[in-house]
Amino acid sequence: MAKAPNSADSADFIIAPDPSAPGLTRAVTGTDQTGAAVDIAVVEERPLTIFLNAREIVTAMTIGDHPDYLALGFLRNQGMLRDDDTITGVDYDEELETVVVRTARETLYEDKLKKKTRTSGCAVGTVFGDMMEGLEQVRLPATPVRVSWLYALADRINRTPSLYLEAGAIHGTVLCQQDRPLVYMEDVGRHNAVDKIAGWMLHHGVSADDKILYTTGRLTSEMVIKTALMGIPVLASRSGFTAWGVDIARQVGLTLIGRMRGHRYMCLSGDDRLIRDVDPGTIPGEDRKHRRKGARA
Amino acid sequence: MAKAPNSADSADFIIAPDPSAPGLTRAVTGTDQTGAAVDIAVVEERPLTIFLNAREIVTAMTIGDHPDYLALGFLRNQGMLRDDDTITGVDYDEELETVVVRTARETLYEDKLKKKTRTSGCAVGTVFGDMMEGLEQVRLPATPVRVSWLYALADRINRTPSLYLEAGAIHGTVLCQQDRPLVYMEDVGRHNAVDKIAGWMLHHGVSADDKILYTTGRLTSEMVIKTALMGIPVLASRSGFTAWGVDIARQVGLTLIGRMRGHRYMCLSGDDRLIRDVDPGTIPGEDRKHRRKGARA
Repeated sequence: MAKAPNSADSADFIIAPDPSAPGLTRAVTGTDQTGAAVDIAVVEERPLTIFLNAREIVTAMTIGDHPDYLALGFLRNQGMLRDDDTITGVDYDEELETVVVRTARETLYEDKLKKKTRTSGCAVGTVFGDMMEGLEQVRLPATPVRVSWLYALADRINRTPSLYLEAGAIHGTVLCQQDRPLVYMEDVGRHNAVDKIAGWMLHHGVSADDKILYTTGRLTSEMVIKTALMGIPVLASRSGFTAWGVDIARQVGLTLIGRMRGHRYMCLSGDDRLIRDVDPGTIPGEDRKHRRKGARA
Repeated sequence: MAKAPNSADSADFIIAPDPSAPGLTRAVTGTDQTGAAVDIAVVEERPLTIFLNAREIVTAMTIGDHPDYLALGFLRNQGMLRDDDTITGVDYDEELETVVVRTARETLYEDKLKKKTRTSGCAVGTVFGDMMEGLEQVRLPATPVRVSWLYALADRINRTPSLYLEAGAIHGTVLCQQDRPLVYMEDVGRHNAVDKIAGWMLHHGVSADDKILYTTGRLTSEMVIKTALMGIPVLASRSGFTAWGVDIARQVGLTLIGRMRGHRYMCLSGDDRLIRDVDPGTIPGEDRKHRRKGARA
């Protein structure tokens, strides 16, 4: 597991990005607009093939950290691992670029593997079986959310050293509790960052009821579905919405906040859980250095 | 097919975004940071199941315009349609959310459908079979590129009315020739926007040798592979790079320009084809209104 960077400010992250970790970025020489040769850091992107017992499930393109959590979380979020499954092993082979998850229960998902859905946008990935499967029963708890927490989280996350600040072209997703970011995962695929968080939660038996998920990417149907199936009642983002994402959030009772930039935000589901405990006028704008991409506010 | 918006400035687009087209965005009521009820436009995201002859291939999550081009381009970019295939029909059923592409040749891709790769980030999608298949033979033509074209394209595209400017949370990809943007496609999945362009090119028999592909998203391996397999020798973006994307671009001889914002850009492959015919100091910065997301420059 990556260590938190040596910054007092991020001392309380359980997992924080480690932009200096070997293998996550590479220096590449190119030319800039003046024609001068310039070295820049670019993120790595490598295949990781996930097996469940003897069965090859998928090859994910990933930055490569936390392959064990990625595999566990992917399988969990696809409904291929159940909460009561006994995991008997998670074996990562760096050379073969494979990770094998073993369970006590025999698993067989031939039918699921036949149906594939390409999901949208930044949250894109493959969803096996019926995307909406299991969603009808989901009713998330009406956990109250202080707006002051959301402002504190956004500010803190934007200022935390990350691969994004180092090399760009990467998404971040952060599991939070009240105003405290706990686990900050990044990946070239945003769906991978979320799956790594799901894997961490599964491995450590972490409850979801009092958590907030913060993401840098868009609030598409896939992001909303993953968050709901993980049982997390609040999803916040700098970025914008899709209509279907909003529909599903309202159906399952997910508090959905987007377009968070500086003091601005939009809440499209669960407004009755928001506790507006801070005057937005007192929230400073984002400074240029830490401004991230996202939908226009 | 969508009509170009009524703006003199975009009169020469062959296809331009039509932000006012019915069904692409929906007004949703939420609350902003002051607690006031606000209506915002959010993009639609709906399933489209693509069939090749009698065989169901994939369900794509898409904004829903140009389903015929999306299906053709997806199948072409997956190597399931060959350039010499006779297309005997493309049947879109809006109610069933299906599109069926029919060919004179019998098609069978059981093996390909077995192997699935989840690609990265914004460019994400499902790739069947070996992602690198067919890439070994690709050597793109050494088409010269004037930097003045790139600046003109970026400026023009950013100012063109679009779903992005209307509702955010969407990617754009534009097929260009010299300083002229020809076909501007948007979609919730960036891979879909590229596939729609590939479908348009296939349908109209458009040659790729003198084209430039401009995208708002990241230059991941999938974007680079799609562009190379389409035969387009130049790929430019506002956003950043992944290391594997750079490797593949260098292997196939693709001119790769990223982090284009205002006068700044980085060229990580094919610098010898760039004709630096303009002083970057004369290029104005981006005004705030038209600033788009993307990697830090």
